[in-house]
Parts: sequence; C-alpha cells; structure tokens
Amino acid sequence: MKLPILIINFKAYGEAAGRRAVDIAKAAERVSRELGVNVAVAPSHLELALVAQSVGIPVYAQGADVESPGAYTAHVAVDNVKEAGASGIILNHSEAPLRLNDLARLVARARAAGLDVVVCAPDPKTSLAAAALGPHAVAVEPPELIGTGRAVSKYKPETVVETVELVKRHFPDVAVITGAGIESGEDVEAALRLGTRGVLLASAAVKAKDHYAKILELARPLAGR
Amino acid sequence: MKLPILIINFKAYGEAAGRRAVDIAKAAERVSRELGVNVAVAPSHLELALVAQSVGIPVYAQGADVESPGAYTAHVAVDNVKEAGASGIILNHSEAPLRLNDLARLVARARAAGLDVVVCAPDPKTSLAAAALGPHAVAVEPPELIGTGRAVSKYKPETVVETVELVKRHFPDVAVITGAGIESGEDVEAALRLGTRGVLLASAAVKAKDHYAKILELARPLAGR
Amino acid sequence: MKLPILIINFKAYGEAAGRRAVDIAKAAERVSRELGVNVAVAPSHLELALVAQSVGIPVYAQGADVESPGAYTAHVAVDNVKEAGASGIILNHSEAPLRLNDLARLVARARAAGLDVVVCAPDPKTSLAAAALGPHAVAVEPPELIGTGRAVSKYKPETVVETVELVKRHFPDVAVITGAGIESGEDVEAALRLGTRGVLLASAAVKAKDHYAKILELARPLAGR
Amino acid sequence: MKLPILIINFKAYGEAAGRRAVDIAKAAERVSRELGVNVAVAPSHLELALVAQSVGIPVYAQGADVESPGAYTAHVAVDNVKEAGASGIILNHSEAPLRLNDLARLVARARAAGLDVVVCAPDPKTSLAAAALGPHAVAVEPPELIGTGRAVSKYKPETVVETVELVKRHFPDVAVITGAGIESGEDVEAALRLGTRGVLLASAAVKAKDHYAKILELARPLAGR
Repeated sequence: MKLPILIINFKAYGEAAGRRAVDIAKAAERVSRELGVNVAVAPSHLELALVAQSVGIPVYAQGADVESPGAYTAHVAVDNVKEAGASGIILNHSEAPLRLNDLARLVARARAAGLDVVVCAPDPKTSLAAAALGPHAVAVEPPELIGTGRAVSKYKPETVVETVELVKRHFPDVAVITGAGIESGEDVEAALRLGTRGVLLASAAVKAKDHYAKILELARPLAGR
Repeated sequence: MKLPILIINFKAYGEAAGRRAVDIAKAAERVSRELGVNVAVAPSHLELALVAQSVGIPVYAQGADVESPGAYTAHVAVDNVKEAGASGIILNHSEAPLRLNDLARLVARARAAGLDVVVCAPDPKTSLAAAALGPHAVAVEPPELIGTGRAVSKYKPETVVETVELVKRHFPDVAVITGAGIESGEDVEAALRLGTRGVLLASAAVKAKDHYAKILELARPLAGR
Repeated sequence: MKLPILIINFKAYGEAAGRRAVDIAKAAERVSRELGVNVAVAPSHLELALVAQSVGIPVYAQGADVESPGAYTAHVAVDNVKEAGASGIILNHSEAPLRLNDLARLVARARAAGLDVVVCAPDPKTSLAAAALGPHAVAVEPPELIGTGRAVSKYKPETVVETVELVKRHFPDVAVITGAGIESGEDVEAALRLGTRGVLLASAAVKAKDHYAKILELARPLAGR
Repeated sequence: MKLPILIINFKAYGEAAGRRAVDIAKAAERVSRELGVNVAVAPSHLELALVAQSVGIPVYAQGADVESPGAYTAHVAVDNVKEAGASGIILNHSEAPLRLNDLARLVARARAAGLDVVVCAPDPKTSLAAAALGPHAVAVEPPELIGTGRAVSKYKPETVVETVELVKRHFPDVAVITGAGIESGEDVEAALRLGTRGVLLASAAVKAKDHYAKILELARPLAGR
C-alpha cells in the first residue's frame, strides 16, 4: 500500500451509479497522474469490474462477505474482488460493520490475496483492536461525523492523535488514516499534520459538481509527503 | 417478466469471476437468440455493470440490501441495480435470506423501479408468504437439494406441485418457478410439466465445460411453451 | 389463544427489569382476575422463568432464535421458552425482525410446541404474508407509531381496517390484533371497533406510575367481548 | 473477577432448561463452597434472574445485545443483566459472534456496570484484538474443537500458549482462559499448566449424569492455585 493515500469511497450514492462511477474514477486518475499522488477509488460492488477495467489507479472494494469463491448468492468473496480487478479492500466501514471473528479471517485472506487492506474503526480503542488483526492501515472515523462536513481532523483531533499514538505503540507497521467529515484540502492538510498517512472520504468528492477540481483540491496536500 | 424463463445464477463461483462472467453471459445470449427463449443471467454484484453493458439479454441482480441510493458503504440499492443496467432482481435466495419486513419493502421498490422480481423460498408455505408480497414470481427451492444435482422436480415433485397449487389459489398473478438441483434438460422438462413457468439454476450452467452446449440443453425444453 | 387479548410487552425497559418484572406481572394478573379478561405479559428473556413461576396468567416470550434446544450460546430456543413456563410467543416484532425463512420455521415449531403464536408486521401486505405462515394472530404495528403515544387505531385506522380485511379474506383462521402508540382505554376501544381481536402494547403499561390502575383502564374495553 | 475460575456455560441445552438450570447451579455452588474455588454459572437468558436469586456463586450472562435499557423487544441490555442479578458476562462466544464495533461498546459498558467481562475468540490473533478492548479475560476457543470432547489444552496446546504469550506481551492486565473440548479434570489441569487462569466449558458439566460429581472433578485442579 503506497502512502500517503487518498481513498474515495463511492458508497451507494446515486451520483456514482452506473456510468458515472467510471467518470469519477477517471477524474481521480487524472489527478493522481498530474500530482503524482496515490489516489484510490472504491466504487460500489455493482461497478467494481467495470471501473477496474477502465482506469489504471488502484481500485478498492468497499467490503467483502466471505473469503473464497463458492455458492454464496449475493455475497462478495475476497478472492473474487481480486479477480474483478481490484487491488485493495475496505473492511468494517461503520455502514458495513463486521463481526470480529469474520473480520479477522477476511483481513488475513485479503492480505494473502495481495490486496491492500484498510480496516475502519470508530474510536481509538477499537482502532487498536483492528490494528491487532494486521491490516495495512486502520481508518479511524467517528460515525457521528461521517457525512456531516465537520472534519474529524478539526472537530475531534484528539481522537486522531490518540489513535495514532496507540497504534504506533503496539503495532508500528500499521498506518493510521482518517476521514469522517473531510470536506476540503484544508481538512486533509490538518489530518496529515495530526500524524495520519492518508484520508478516506466520500461525499466531498462524489457529490462535487466538478469532480476533477474537487479531487485536485483534496489530493494536493498529499503531494511531496 | 417474460415467461417461461431460464435464470442462470452465477453465485460467487470462481468459474464466473472477472471476465469469465461476460463469457458465460454471451453464451447464454447466443442460446436465447437461437432458441427464441428467455434466458436471464444473474452475475455477481462485482460484474453486474460490466455484464449488463456486454449483452442484450436480461441481467438480474442476485439481491439488494436497501431501497434507495445513499450512504450505504458495501451495500446494494435497488435503484442502483437498475442504474447499473439490470432488468430484474432475485431476492431472498436461501444463501442470502432477508428479513420479512425488508423483503416486503424491497419487493415493492423493485417493482416500482420496473425490475422483474423473483423471490425465493424453501417450501410451499413460505412460498405462499412470499407470493403475498406481490413479486412477479416465486422460486421454490428446498435448500437441502441446492447444489446436489438431485433435481427438485424429480426428488421433491410434491413440493413443487403443492407450491403451484397454493400460490395459484391465493395469488394467481404470481408465477411459480423452481430450481434446486437442476442438472439437465430432462430436469427442466420435468419442472415445466409440474406446472412451473421457469427454472432458476446455477452450477449446472456455470461449472459446465462448454457453457454454450450446456445452456442450450437446459433452455431447449422452454422453446415453444 | 383466548381472544380478545391484551398483551403487555415489557421490552428491555429498565422499569420492568429484575424484580420489577414480577410486580408488573402481578398487577396484570389482578386485573385479569377482576375483569375476567385475558391479559398476557411478555417479560424480557432475563426474567421469563422467574415471572412464569410467579403468576398464573399467560406469559409470552418476546421472541426466539432457534427451534430446538442445543449448543446455541446466548440464543433462545422455542422449546426452551415452553420449558421456562411460557404459554405463548411474539415473533418478528419490529425491534427484532426475523428472516422470512426463519420466521416460517419458528412459527411452525411454536405451534407444534403448543404455544400461542403472535407475529408482528408493519403494514397490511406484510401482515398478509405473516398470516400465510399460520400463526394464531398477526399484530399490525406501523413502526413509525410505536412508542409515540399516537395510537394506530386513531392515526392510521385505514392500516388496521385494510389488514383485517386482507387477512380475513385469505386466512380467516388468523386473528388480527394491533397496538402501536396505544396509550389509553379509549385507544383500545377504538382498536376493537376497527375489527381487531386484541391489543399489544408496551410503554403505556410498563412506564405507568400505578401499574394496576393503568392496566385496568387498558383492559376494561375487552370485558364482555 | 476472581481467578482462577471455572465457568459453566449452560448454552441453550435442554438439560439446563427450566428448573434444571437451578439444579445445576446449586451443584456448582456446593462444589465452590467445598473446594473454595471460584465457580461461575452462565444459564440461558430465560433462567438468568431465576438462577441469580437461587444461588450465591457468580452468575454470568451468556451475552448481551445493547448497552442500556429501552425499547428493544427480545434483546438483552447490559444494564438489565446486572439488574437481573448477574455479576458477569460472556461476550462474542463463537455461537453468538459480535460485530467488532458493538463488542467494543458492550465491553466498555459491562465494565462500567461492574460486571466481570469475558470475551471469547477463536485464535491467538483475534484474542489479541479482543484483549485490546479491555475485558477482564479473553477465552480462546478454537470453534472446531467446541463440543467435540477433544480438549484444546491437549489437541491445540500451541494455540493456547501463543495466545497467553501475545496477550501478556501487549495487554498484561487481561487474563487468558480457554475451554473448547474440555471433558475432564485432567484437561483442566493441562489448561492451567499452559498458563491460562481458568476454563470455560459447557457440555461436560451440563450433560453429566451426576452434576455435582462432574463439576467437582472439573473444579478440583483450580484448588490452591
């Protein structure tokens, strides 16, 4: 997993449904190339293979349900995520929380499959538990800030700082990223100054009128770090 | 929903992952055109948009989690299924069972979105409850036969007959299809003779060495009905 | 199941925790005896056996997870509900929604175990599906009214009437009861006038200062029906 | 939480349903008094309050769903577990696995409520994550051994040793206990020799013909430690 990183989560937003997923991914790709920073996109499951064959930047799955392919109607297997062209995966997003035991197995499998693995958690202690499972990064996101436009890096900096400290002390190989409420380049800058190595965000980029311009703003603070 | 119908469920099989999903869908399309029968494919979520833009036959989603687009990381919204190019949806497959209350709302939304709606159920009484929700079709599939190669139309014909009878008596607008364990054209023929209007199957087609030949065999009994 | 019935759901209210569960159950028992009406109590799982050995009126479980006893830590089996002294069970309450397929099996098992079976549903169509499974009664409760003090019998009478009509037409052996937002004897009276055969309520009784007086008010409209 | 400890999980076994739960708890109480060792019982939710008022030894809940009392039909709140008379709680048993984020909140609440908190986990790494959440103890139990009679302390000693080591290194305040497949006093002895501070078991005690005699055998190795 190349750090620092900007991950754009398309969630199940209508603004990123169907062909629009490819358009936003292409805007992100252009920014990545121009700034020389690592920008990954996480489209809905429905467009994962389509987006993956359309752009050269990392494509992350928003989650997975089981480890191996098989008779799992309507479920997503880690190995198939890889097969569909993704190079990373987000697990345990607060909108798709996983059982601890499943999460442990999915992290292990995703690493074995060569995927970048980001595990989300709502607070420092849960982030520490997530880090214990050995992902590449934990993304600390207080759920009460997600989608509010009140950036965690400004409104709950102590949450970010405490997570960075706790994770570094026990599991120094695991990076900490953050994201809830990130709206602007300034918020991203603040997040990096608090010691995180990247940002996971959604609506700010997906719902922007001009995707290219907004992603450019959001990604710029990562350049040169 | 055009009847009779053959629906091929790709599940999360590795044999239908990535580009292979498109290949199987194209084989199904060829059979559909040649025989003039309705063959639908239900790829994994991961390849839904990709398959939908690659073939002209109906593409069904294997399921959905919520009704409308929004901030639902790793979830699939009914409206986005439509946006991704699908024309139908399978709900409550025994491998992805839904809460009754959610199922009721998803069926209503999928119908409103103009999708063909198939609800699966394990036995006659549960099929009757599913039919009460107003889908286009119920698919009765005893879970203990799914994936066994022992066709419900041969090993549990009474389950099929009882379902057809119960559903017809109370909700005559809802078609009954079936599927568990269907392996051959002969099994499909038997299912139709029992009064069903179609077949939902998976491994027989997906794991076949020659997809075109096997789907041709499975679809042939529908021709002219 | 003796009709008409007043069912008092203790939920996980602190006001009905520990010994207080027994106190409320005894108040209900006194009302039942004095008015000669059927009043059932549904304590939390935690106090089920304790309440069942303390009173002579019907005790209902608030739900169950599996059918038979076994190695199911933290789960409740239908047969053990009976063994703990209960004579009825509420399934699919909107706060504990069940998968259709599980619900179908739990209803069948609970009936086989000789329990009274009440299945909750949020609207007429879902109530019809619930009735198709063969419980003794369905309880139609629009979730948006539960706990609001705005009685379904006043604010959504058409929901109640439509449910009574639909269920009677297809499954005349299944009684319809209702409940959301019921606060007063007047609300209960209105519910019965709409054609229901009982009421399921919670906070009005459990949070009352004088349990006996409030339950007496709520049960009185059932006397003589 | 008093260590070492023997915890007897009644699961949803028919052998521990209804009044039988009290009988087994009384046998455990007698052993506890005679040997002077800490023996706790974890009855089904259905008998929790009944057992808690019948014996003087620690009574543990088999789990909980939410933190605070409220409108949660068929769910168990941590605070109500305390109110029902329990002094401890088992969380995340492999038969009742919890989402990481919920588990983190339930552990915190249970500690705040003054309950002994045991979190189960299937392997060393997941145990480490569980320990990060700050319970009194983690119980490492490979699910494939649960209920088999093949004791983890004999068949997977390396799992136990690795867990003890990992947890001690990072979170030395958290005790490690174990249990899967424990059948005899000898198995308990082996578990303690591997560095654990207690044993969590179920069928060996619950399904014994003579509860007192079997629990005496199982608890004896804890005496004097």
